[in-house]
Amino acid sequence: MRTIDWNDESDSIMLIDQTLLPAEYKVIECKTLAALCEAIMSLRVRGAPALGAAGGYGMALAARLSSAKDMDGLLKDMQIAARAIKGTRPTAVNLAWGVDRVLHAINDAYDLKGIKNTALSEAKMMADEDVTKNRKMGEFGAKLLEDGDVVLTHCNAGRMACVDWGTALGVIRSAVEDGKQIQVVACETRPLNQGSRITAWELMQDNIPVTLIADSMSGHLMRKGVINKVIVGADRITEDVVFNKIGTYTHSVLAKEHGIPFYVAAPLSTFDLEGWEESVTIELRDENELRFCNGKIMAPKDVKVYNPAFDATPMENITGLITERGIYYPPFLLDELFI
Amino acid sequence: MRTIDWNDESDSIMLIDQTLLPAEYKVIECKTLAALCEAIMSLRVRGAPALGAAGGYGMALAARLSSAKDMDGLLKDMQIAARAIKGTRPTAVNLAWGVDRVLHAINDAYDLKGIKNTALSEAKMMADEDVTKNRKMGEFGAKLLEDGDVVLTHCNAGRMACVDWGTALGVIRSAVEDGKQIQVVACETRPLNQGSRITAWELMQDNIPVTLIADSMSGHLMRKGVINKVIVGADRITEDVVFNKIGTYTHSVLAKEHGIPFYVAAPLSTFDLEGWEESVTIELRDENELRFCNGKIMAPKDVKVYNPAFDATPMENITGLITERGIYYPPFLLDELFI
Repeated sequence: MRTIDWNDESDSIMLIDQTLLPAEYKVIECKTLAALCEAIMSLRVRGAPALGAAGGYGMALAARLSSAKDMDGLLKDMQIAARAIKGTRPTAVNLAWGVDRVLHAINDAYDLKGIKNTALSEAKMMADEDVTKNRKMGEFGAKLLEDGDVVLTHCNAGRMACVDWGTALGVIRSAVEDGKQIQVVACETRPLNQGSRITAWELMQDNIPVTLIADSMSGHLMRKGVINKVIVGADRITEDVVFNKIGTYTHSVLAKEHGIPFYVAAPLSTFDLEGWEESVTIELRDENELRFCNGKIMAPKDVKVYNPAFDATPMENITGLITERGIYYPPFLLDELFI
Repeated sequence: MRTIDWNDESDSIMLIDQTLLPAEYKVIECKTLAALCEAIMSLRVRGAPALGAAGGYGMALAARLSSAKDMDGLLKDMQIAARAIKGTRPTAVNLAWGVDRVLHAINDAYDLKGIKNTALSEAKMMADEDVTKNRKMGEFGAKLLEDGDVVLTHCNAGRMACVDWGTALGVIRSAVEDGKQIQVVACETRPLNQGSRITAWELMQDNIPVTLIADSMSGHLMRKGVINKVIVGADRITEDVVFNKIGTYTHSVLAKEHGIPFYVAAPLSTFDLEGWEESVTIELRDENELRFCNGKIMAPKDVKVYNPAFDATPMENITGLITERGIYYPPFLLDELFI
């Protein structure tokens, strides 16, 4: 199944619980907004494009669940839901984008049933579009990869970060589909190990060769000449920087030092043209993510921890931005992307 | 107690089991060479200077345990022990240095008892010297730190990596002893988390402020201007590179990019003047260290893993080498250190 989908029979959201992978493959059903918000905050569903779909489906769910008897009441319920959903992951721009797109679409509806139907059809359309966009991105990006390339990636910008196919891993999948031999080096991505748990699992499912490393090993492998390219996803792209999983900036500096191309694959919904680095709050996550691992203590229980979810990579460290509209090279005049 | 010590009552080696920290503080007793070798391979005792002491005490233990009736037999037993001990951690030069120093010392002994006594007294002297050297290094290195500095360190080059006091953390301890306010940023140091388990614990015991981060966060913190200096230890220093825990090279590139001084604190016993980067084999450790955490699977069980214990940092990335003889600045003419 897709990473996240709508269940027409039970009017609920179905999603693969990514916190259990690879030990267990379990699909969970979110019948309430609270369940969806919990799933987003706990990273059961994560990844910028998948969060866009989660935002859209969340609004469809809010519309279905509302007991309002008139349009004003329904719209009020949906506004409350919108705030709750957006608040779960403040840095991820796609989540807000998905929510807002449904809110915008229902402007054209003229009754309660119309709003509910429009919210759902818009959310479904967004999910389908996500797959199409990733395929387009893959097509453009695959041209950047050569037969025999060893590509480093960080976190999971794959099928499980999207509705399907993937952004960074989608580019790799498309290159493999074109008949190229590509090897992937997956960074485990501390502290929640999306690289070891999800990226490695996803690629092995598709028989794409993958080697797992600790995040700190990327410099060593680049110095040894093992890595040809780096491709990562993005959580938010402003005029000046790319926000992505913590550790991305470190890999970008290393890639620059070793003359290795550093690409970011992200749909245009990730772009925040009005934002700048300083206008974006980086989400700080629970300190216990670093103190504990699999429920067992790994550090003094009262040690001070700094645990930002994202970092910012300046545009000058980026070789190219891979989007569904093509590849953009520096200088990145982001406004031009949307003309 | 010291990290590693000799027990005169039972003629055995006592060491703090560092794999259990910080959850449990347990002292184990090695009565056989096999127990010592297991402790070294499992990293119950680790850290370059502590391994030097372990090598020395291991030879003293081998001498005690030998049932040889003549000098030839005893020397043969000790040669066999030397090979076994050295083979446990091939990259760590101090281990071989500790073994060889005892082998050299017993040349002056003229009977069985003399060999056994000399081996033990030499091993004890080495352990005492290690503390003195670390204090000297601390004295020299502390002058490099300013009041208010935030110092990033990787892995554990502290009291627990030595017989006492520490190399990189010894420098910080000496600066704190001089009345300077120093904050430490400890990288957790994947995959075995010596940073979170040992460095954070050690510093908290001494009331030195420490913040724990994932290894991949160092670039982000340097870009934010939070880090003033980096100090790490070393496992082997050749003419061209410093071998240290995997991840060190990555921090060195980031420090260079951000104009942050990068220091290596290591006793002269870590220097391998005849070695070059290419002559040294980097120890590859068990792949399951990255697949499992605290006994629970974190990655597909058959995923390919690359798990080198060390990386090599070229001399041009190093601002200064802190030794017990003083601080050396580039160009590093290592031969001159030993004149």
